[in-house]
Amino acid sequence: MVDGLVADNCVPKWRNETFDVAPRWGMPPVFRLDRGAVPFFGTRAYGVHLNGYMREGDGLRLWVGRRSPAKQIAPNKLDNLVAGGIGNGHGIAETLVKEAEEEASIPPSLIKHAVPAGAVSYRMETRLGIRDDVLFVYDLETPADFAPENRDGEIVHFELMPASEVLERIRATSDFKFNVNLVILDFAVRHGLLRADDPEYLDVATGLHRPLD
Amino acid sequence: MVDGLVADNCVPKWRNETFDVAPRWGMPPVFRLDRGAVPFFGTRAYGVHLNGYMREGDGLRLWVGRRSPAKQIAPNKLDNLVAGGIGNGHGIAETLVKEAEEEASIPPSLIKHAVPAGAVSYRMETRLGIRDDVLFVYDLETPADFAPENRDGEIVHFELMPASEVLERIRATSDFKFNVNLVILDFAVRHGLLRADDPEYLDVATGLHRPLD
Repeated sequence: MVDGLVADNCVPKWRNETFDVAPRWGMPPVFRLDRGAVPFFGTRAYGVHLNGYMREGDGLRLWVGRRSPAKQIAPNKLDNLVAGGIGNGHGIAETLVKEAEEEASIPPSLIKHAVPAGAVSYRMETRLGIRDDVLFVYDLETPADFAPENRDGEIVHFELMPASEVLERIRATSDFKFNVNLVILDFAVRHGLLRADDPEYLDVATGLHRPLD
Repeated sequence: MVDGLVADNCVPKWRNETFDVAPRWGMPPVFRLDRGAVPFFGTRAYGVHLNGYMREGDGLRLWVGRRSPAKQIAPNKLDNLVAGGIGNGHGIAETLVKEAEEEASIPPSLIKHAVPAGAVSYRMETRLGIRDDVLFVYDLETPADFAPENRDGEIVHFELMPASEVLERIRATSDFKFNVNLVILDFAVRHGLLRADDPEYLDVATGLHRPLD
């Protein structure tokens, strides 16, 4: 079926990576679907995102990666330290450990300190169809002697950016990949980087967690 | 009008504290309503809740207050270190500082370290009508030489409870005031106290932040 959809240009190409489709997270999957065809059907997809950060006096700096120009989705955009979809049969922590190693050379001895900090959820229409995504969010405070290094070619460069600059670029530009903006805003709310009396605070604090049906 | 509703037993009694009613938070209020009549009309109400905690090795302990048996709402239930409704004309931080002093004798020099960490929102039906509440949430790590002391008679006792015990009582009992369960679950998600692979994790992580209309 996906072959036919690719031939008809309804799906851009096979990704050769399949996602489980289940009535709810944690239930036995009903079928598997190639990742490229997921938006066409609008089934829910799950991912893991890692906010890497360092404290600096009273402030924070965030690890930001630049996505390769060769990426099919969001080429050249800025990204979290680690992010990846949860392929069929794989667990959340397992995906985090694997992606942390491939994308940023974070060893298991460091990634085990990552703190699960919730989930960001959204549903949106894109050129390719509906994205109904749930992103499990982790935070990792990295030690002074750590610098990420990409191994799989998906990130061309990492830098440590002051949180204030990250938030200003989220506010004023489209530099970050669309859903990374949401993950970092959630980080900013949880770490007290936004003022509660900002007129947009409640929209941010309540808008990043779409209750799941 | 509230006099008439109290006479008809539609509203239990005057609270002599008014809440602003506005189309959205931050917009000029259209009118003020006695707090006791808010559920009858189902207008949105705003509050501030403070999670007080101490680190202990790898774990956390949370400050828990027991509400006075004389309280009209949720007598004898367990509560956050500080919690209060935002009365008309008052700001979020202003309410936090005032309630922190009255309810727990937290001085301004300590409460200024409270970190805004988001908002919990819900809409529910109660015996008195609809509650459509938004709670601004703050966290405060308290120093070793601090012990809360109630001044206004609303809390009869404070204790420092291991987070694991707090979560077990939330899971298995109705010991905590209904909305304090939500505030503490949000704290637990943000501080990595829940496992992301728990089957109920996503319901908790996405269910505490009802997007506002």
